[in-house]
Amino acid sequence: MRHYTHLRDIGPKGQAQFLKIASEFKRNEPGPLLKNKVLGMLFFNPSLRTRTSFEVAMMKLGGHAVALEEGAGVWKLETEDGAVMNADKAEHVREAAPVLSRYVDVLGVRAFSRGMGQADDDVDGVINAFRRHAKVPMISLESAREHPCQGLADMLTVEESFGQTQGVKVVLSWAPHLKPLPKAVPNSVLLHAAAAGCEVVVAHPPGFELGPAVREEAARYAAESRGKISYTTDQKAALEGAHVVYTKAWGPEPRVSEDSIVASPALRGWMPTLKHFESCASDAIFMHCLPVRRNVEVSDEVLDSEFSRVVDEAENRLWVQMAALAWLFGKA
Amino acid sequence: MRHYTHLRDIGPKGQAQFLKIASEFKRNEPGPLLKNKVLGMLFFNPSLRTRTSFEVAMMKLGGHAVALEEGAGVWKLETEDGAVMNADKAEHVREAAPVLSRYVDVLGVRAFSRGMGQADDDVDGVINAFRRHAKVPMISLESAREHPCQGLADMLTVEESFGQTQGVKVVLSWAPHLKPLPKAVPNSVLLHAAAAGCEVVVAHPPGFELGPAVREEAARYAAESRGKISYTTDQKAALEGAHVVYTKAWGPEPRVSEDSIVASPALRGWMPTLKHFESCASDAIFMHCLPVRRNVEVSDEVLDSEFSRVVDEAENRLWVQMAALAWLFGKA
Amino acid sequence: MRHYTHLRDIGPKGQAQFLKIASEFKRNEPGPLLKNKVLGMLFFNPSLRTRTSFEVAMMKLGGHAVALEEGAGVWKLETEDGAVMNADKAEHVREAAPVLSRYVDVLGVRAFSRGMGQADDDVDGVINAFRRHAKVPMISLESAREHPCQGLADMLTVEESFGQTQGVKVVLSWAPHLKPLPKAVPNSVLLHAAAAGCEVVVAHPPGFELGPAVREEAARYAAESRGKISYTTDQKAALEGAHVVYTKAWGPEPRVSEDSIVASPALRGWMPTLKHFESCASDAIFMHCLPVRRNVEVSDEVLDSEFSRVVDEAENRLWVQMAALAWLFGKA
Repeated sequence: MRHYTHLRDIGPKGQAQFLKIASEFKRNEPGPLLKNKVLGMLFFNPSLRTRTSFEVAMMKLGGHAVALEEGAGVWKLETEDGAVMNADKAEHVREAAPVLSRYVDVLGVRAFSRGMGQADDDVDGVINAFRRHAKVPMISLESAREHPCQGLADMLTVEESFGQTQGVKVVLSWAPHLKPLPKAVPNSVLLHAAAAGCEVVVAHPPGFELGPAVREEAARYAAESRGKISYTTDQKAALEGAHVVYTKAWGPEPRVSEDSIVASPALRGWMPTLKHFESCASDAIFMHCLPVRRNVEVSDEVLDSEFSRVVDEAENRLWVQMAALAWLFGKA
Repeated sequence: MRHYTHLRDIGPKGQAQFLKIASEFKRNEPGPLLKNKVLGMLFFNPSLRTRTSFEVAMMKLGGHAVALEEGAGVWKLETEDGAVMNADKAEHVREAAPVLSRYVDVLGVRAFSRGMGQADDDVDGVINAFRRHAKVPMISLESAREHPCQGLADMLTVEESFGQTQGVKVVLSWAPHLKPLPKAVPNSVLLHAAAAGCEVVVAHPPGFELGPAVREEAARYAAESRGKISYTTDQKAALEGAHVVYTKAWGPEPRVSEDSIVASPALRGWMPTLKHFESCASDAIFMHCLPVRRNVEVSDEVLDSEFSRVVDEAENRLWVQMAALAWLFGKA
Repeated sequence: MRHYTHLRDIGPKGQAQFLKIASEFKRNEPGPLLKNKVLGMLFFNPSLRTRTSFEVAMMKLGGHAVALEEGAGVWKLETEDGAVMNADKAEHVREAAPVLSRYVDVLGVRAFSRGMGQADDDVDGVINAFRRHAKVPMISLESAREHPCQGLADMLTVEESFGQTQGVKVVLSWAPHLKPLPKAVPNSVLLHAAAAGCEVVVAHPPGFELGPAVREEAARYAAESRGKISYTTDQKAALEGAHVVYTKAWGPEPRVSEDSIVASPALRGWMPTLKHFESCASDAIFMHCLPVRRNVEVSDEVLDSEFSRVVDEAENRLWVQMAALAWLFGKA
């Protein structure tokens, strides 16, 4: 049975195939490939793009999506094996996953990091518990470790902008925020760009390193795809000649209190302004997964500039997800 | 690109056309005019009728509706340009609107008044921000200033009851409530009834005047449609010979604290009872947009009487919305 | 007009017919029997199985389901006649039910017990208020007194396991919990098993008797279906030779505070472990309606054992609901 919860489910070759399918679907909608199939989506966290784009993706493929919100309309779920369930969680994933598998044909789960550090994120407890107990294909709507549909959408956007992903210089540039945000998106940018053969530079202040397991996995993909990866704390140097400025806020490791580093005045200069684009390539683009806090993570002038591809990225979620769903059913 | 967020988008002639289409659709459902089209509905406030009737409208037209609730499942949205987003709002309408425009074919937004007075309601900041930034047709699910689908449904109900709207005496009669409710519905009753050529009487206690911009717009529509408008603080005089008693609670202007005027014992007599119908026309009907607080805004005896058309009004939401949606796509 | 809100709507013969239809649907999906029909579902309480299985049921039958949550996205609803609505409830069922009846073709309501005792549960105020005021067929998504779709799903599961329901020994065995849960499910297990001709034994600690009206109704069904019913406070004796161990937590009567009996250490032995199956029939099965609190109501070892049919029960919700929906429209 096929699943797509992490890039390792498909690897660099799979990503290349997915991007090809997504491009074709975007040019010519494929019609009802998944006629009468039902996607169950279970959200442990809010969503705008993911909820809407998956629901529309299923409709365009002739199927239907059911959206469920854990803890709001749906019972709160336990995911730890052996738990004595005497607190606020009324149902266990050991029941929820096989039961939903009897109703739906594919199951999507969104479960952000619970903020207990990179090792815990790497375990990715909630989505992996569902994957263990579900009896139908699973797709990630973003988990603690990765956001693999975002990663695909980003690479489709790079490919559309530059005609290829190979050798494109992608600078993943840390941004300030009010809160130490999860690392799923920066992890996926690194992994997917490495797998797509990009020249990836990860730029962040000291203390904001991405986790070793993700970095190692990215290195393997880069080796396979003839990509390059480097890490720096010098944003200015990183941006020189950049084709893609991909900005994203994430929290420090080891974790600190919410009131410390992330919003410190010393780091405000990391917020991209038009000035940051001066040393970039002449055809540079700006990317961000959204939602974005304007004038905190990214300045208005960048988001409203001709550099910005953030709406295209969001649209591409639709097409890569249609590709992924079709693949899960062996239809692509 | 067509939009329907305010009556001024279509004016008196447009309203007449919409009512004609809605009547035809009610007699003979039009089939899949909007096959595979998707309506995105974004709710900043609760809904029963609007949510259900739009979802069913899209289904009857062969399409699909996605319902999103801001702040519950969906990120809280900023609508002010230039905002430094360092509070609780995680996404800006400048991203949300164009992104949703890539997924859906028409976008509906519900955003009630934020209670900052008539001038602020007239600006109608939230729905107009969406309208500025969306790339697809927009339809109002009720905003600060107007509830234009309610206005249409009300006029269809008047027409069904009296064979015409021209010259029908519609008394918009203020009602008590616990809270100073928004003016979107009374504004729309005035505007749509004026545009339909009714003889409109707005009756309310002193201090509850509707805003000058809405009154002026209504006067223009009345002039165009040979309607009449008058304002009074004498409910008893207003009801004489009334064909339509349209009751609705709304708040005072300038605004006062929630505990003051609206629930004052001196105003309880404004709540319609059967006695209020004694001087009305013999074929008088009772209307209210719903939801209604029984025995606070309107007495049980009126709501349960033969005068009441409140359920018909609610049903007519479905048919006028199908007409409006078809029109947005140039299909009517 | 047909309704299915309580077993008495169809009785033992109706149940037999529904189970036959459900079995046929499970073997061969019936196709679009309810083409373009809309089910409105109104939830006063959370749901995972019910929401998903009804939405999928309508889809499989060619129709559509709209899910509404009271108090979350939808106005809070008053159900008492004559209420002066000056508190938190903005709309009355006297409007909500007939209005929804204009939009949808069948209306489902979930409204759990409000915890005011068996007599109040028997009145079943909320769902019966909807039934009085709705103008379309109604189906229960679980109410204070019964969960009639669960009861059907349970009997289908018994029939699938033993080839028949007649004479099967079903032990409804009380279980510990943190809270005094409602009795809708145990009521329905008793009623549906009695109506199916099972040998029902209800085992519970002293003070947890099911209500007299339900017991009396069950006795009538048992008489009609040649079933047997007995009550005991001796779990061990009850389980001897049991074919079905149906475990469910419910609260005491008369009601006590949440902190007393239900979680008392003295009652922990009522939680099923594998040891409880030693004296059961060799082909015994374990049933529970879900959600279940592992290691509080039921031990992991039972839920993860070969005895467990809890996922099959949940799946059968889908098929019996398709049968019930088809019957409501005279299509089965």
